[in-house]
Amino acid sequence: MHSAVDVIRVKRDGGRLSDEQIDWVVDAYTRGEVADEQMASLAMAVLLRGMTPEETARWTRAMVASGEVLDLGSVSRPTVDKHSTGGVGDKITLPLTPLVAACGAAVPQLSGRGLGHTGGTLDKLESIPGWRAQLSLDEIRAQLDDVGAVVCAATEGLAPADRKLYALRDVTGTVESIPLIASSIMSKKIAEGVQSLVLDVKCGSGAFMKDLDQARQLATALVDIGTAGGVRTSALITDMSVPLGRAVGNALEVAEAVEVLRGGGPSDVVELTLALAREMLAHAGLSDVDPAEALADGRAHDVWCRMVKAQGGDPDAELPRARHVDVVTAPRDGVLTELDAFAVGVAAWRLGAGRARKEDDVDHAAGVLCLAKPGDRVTAGQPLLELHTDRPDTVAAARDALRDAYRISDAARESTPLVLDRVAAGS
Amino acid sequence: MHSAVDVIRVKRDGGRLSDEQIDWVVDAYTRGEVADEQMASLAMAVLLRGMTPEETARWTRAMVASGEVLDLGSVSRPTVDKHSTGGVGDKITLPLTPLVAACGAAVPQLSGRGLGHTGGTLDKLESIPGWRAQLSLDEIRAQLDDVGAVVCAATEGLAPADRKLYALRDVTGTVESIPLIASSIMSKKIAEGVQSLVLDVKCGSGAFMKDLDQARQLATALVDIGTAGGVRTSALITDMSVPLGRAVGNALEVAEAVEVLRGGGPSDVVELTLALAREMLAHAGLSDVDPAEALADGRAHDVWCRMVKAQGGDPDAELPRARHVDVVTAPRDGVLTELDAFAVGVAAWRLGAGRARKEDDVDHAAGVLCLAKPGDRVTAGQPLLELHTDRPDTVAAARDALRDAYRISDAARESTPLVLDRVAAGS
Repeated sequence: MHSAVDVIRVKRDGGRLSDEQIDWVVDAYTRGEVADEQMASLAMAVLLRGMTPEETARWTRAMVASGEVLDLGSVSRPTVDKHSTGGVGDKITLPLTPLVAACGAAVPQLSGRGLGHTGGTLDKLESIPGWRAQLSLDEIRAQLDDVGAVVCAATEGLAPADRKLYALRDVTGTVESIPLIASSIMSKKIAEGVQSLVLDVKCGSGAFMKDLDQARQLATALVDIGTAGGVRTSALITDMSVPLGRAVGNALEVAEAVEVLRGGGPSDVVELTLALAREMLAHAGLSDVDPAEALADGRAHDVWCRMVKAQGGDPDAELPRARHVDVVTAPRDGVLTELDAFAVGVAAWRLGAGRARKEDDVDHAAGVLCLAKPGDRVTAGQPLLELHTDRPDTVAAARDALRDAYRISDAARESTPLVLDRVAAGS
Repeated sequence: MHSAVDVIRVKRDGGRLSDEQIDWVVDAYTRGEVADEQMASLAMAVLLRGMTPEETARWTRAMVASGEVLDLGSVSRPTVDKHSTGGVGDKITLPLTPLVAACGAAVPQLSGRGLGHTGGTLDKLESIPGWRAQLSLDEIRAQLDDVGAVVCAATEGLAPADRKLYALRDVTGTVESIPLIASSIMSKKIAEGVQSLVLDVKCGSGAFMKDLDQARQLATALVDIGTAGGVRTSALITDMSVPLGRAVGNALEVAEAVEVLRGGGPSDVVELTLALAREMLAHAGLSDVDPAEALADGRAHDVWCRMVKAQGGDPDAELPRARHVDVVTAPRDGVLTELDAFAVGVAAWRLGAGRARKEDDVDHAAGVLCLAKPGDRVTAGQPLLELHTDRPDTVAAARDALRDAYRISDAARESTPLVLDRVAAGS
């Protein structure tokens, strides 16, 4: 017979929770037998005392067991997914999913919506007229077999413990715990039923993890959980001090993703898309396929069009455009040496691209276009940033967020690599 | 504009809460604007990160401000109260309150009921036929002026924040925090409106604080808060490794208290009653009055009778007696060297003297009589403990609790003093 107070006390006093205690407390919380205030107290104790890799893996397993696990056994291709911890301008899922499908794998991307300064993949795709995020499990399986690529909303039945716990952590100051972050991410991904998984752990001002050490800790925790859960898992740690690509905002990012799928687009978006694709293809036993070719010869774009159409969208439809565009110009000649991802994310959010509360709608046309990126030479008066919005009253607040967001210097600075590190099982 | 998450984060990250943050979070929690799960997370952060004496004093002040403060300004005598942190056989309030009143002070003892292995003063007095615990503020004031002594239930309006927070801590594993324990005790006592206060901080197996170091920490926290709140406060740290006196259980303890008030009773109960009375009288400016005289000449017993009658009780009525008495005998000759307070408390509780849940009733006749105390020479077969109950089916469990509760040795051991230390402001 377990009691919530006994479990809380063990962790509070720096002890290790047993498998039975973890299984019980996660299940009892999901059923409402353990109250929100008890789980909040336990979450704070976990945040301050930590959990071992074994506790974290078991906690994740218990969250997976709180709901259904998708059965993708009938899908004929090898299944592989990617998850990003979230950044500014991170539209990589959009070109990556059809690209990896075009190379022979099946990619079920069960995604979420954005909250705060980072955008959500579903919000981005919903700027395509007609596209729908909700698919049934049968629809997901059929589309995986047929097209190889699905981006859709996670079904309610996956890891309900995580949904409940995440909402609780959000209001109780217990988000910033690596074991809890890692188990939240991995419980949803393991419940997807994929064979392998690549994590894109973002690091820098625009990411949740601000420094490389923290990002490595999170990446290691994620890989450990995946491996313990029987999923081939690795992680790339990638830079998020500067926005990815030029576009930040839903429709603006879809347009940029389509550029990439047509063989163009910003070099950083192309580079990261290919790096993640290679990592995923290696897990899927398809390392001999070159994703760069599938991007260049239009096969990836073809899968994109089929994927959008399969979910009711029109890939040729015009995307929503903002009624008002305001421009920030360079105050002097020089080289742009900094463009702060967090500040650009906040500006896009204030223009309407993001939501402050879960129940808010997003403005699909709103966002920021970065016309210059670090390393570019600029002249005084040249447009640096375009602020897109349907609500001109938001521009002052967006400009305010961008006040210290960029720096123009006399000489270029050494650029940082986009992929900072790689973490794999046992590494 | 405060947010609960911001306040939680400050404490979580080891920071110091500002006066404004403390005032806001306590008030907002009492009003229900800060949710239970948020306060639970904050309480765990406080437990693990601590609070400074200044934070603890402000937290207490905010809890006092959550309700009404009794106005005892019209009471003609100096007002002084005693609070014990709770022990086994601790009936000291019963002789002490009329004794100190007999010496010229006014003693408003607003008390609680017992939970777990320690008894509650109201439960004890309710074994007197007719006695009622609920008094109005006007009745309290009139009785203080007339009799000088009141033991009654705390009114609902005192420190409602504490009542709500205590119930929350009880179910979230956040009881064991010295700043939270100290502010809980002191908020109720400061709201009583007394001029001075003496604390009896129990230390030992039968107490909440098991060792002297912890007891000193709690005593210091309590004295600091009282002093900061304008109440003359001191604390005695007293031994609770052995039950106080011989009687453990409601009516049994009332009978023992009456023995003391009649000039007899166990020596340890008399010693502690006098030590606390001297401490209280010194605070009240009455150090020239000798409480030993007031006990010996019957004045304290006279005030007891008037106090009981004023609250509807019959001081001459027969107390309830258990229908079943079981005896534990000495297994060998020797000297009793140990009698564990916690084990005796648990046995009395199992016999029906205490409650497991707040809504349970207590059995006023149930309890344990300790016929021998450490230092006493015993012979094989001599009765050591009497188990009193109306439910003979509880005896086996009570005997089980007592299995390792006592030790009989060949030689006496050095006895520990009853009063272990004294803590006063600035000491």
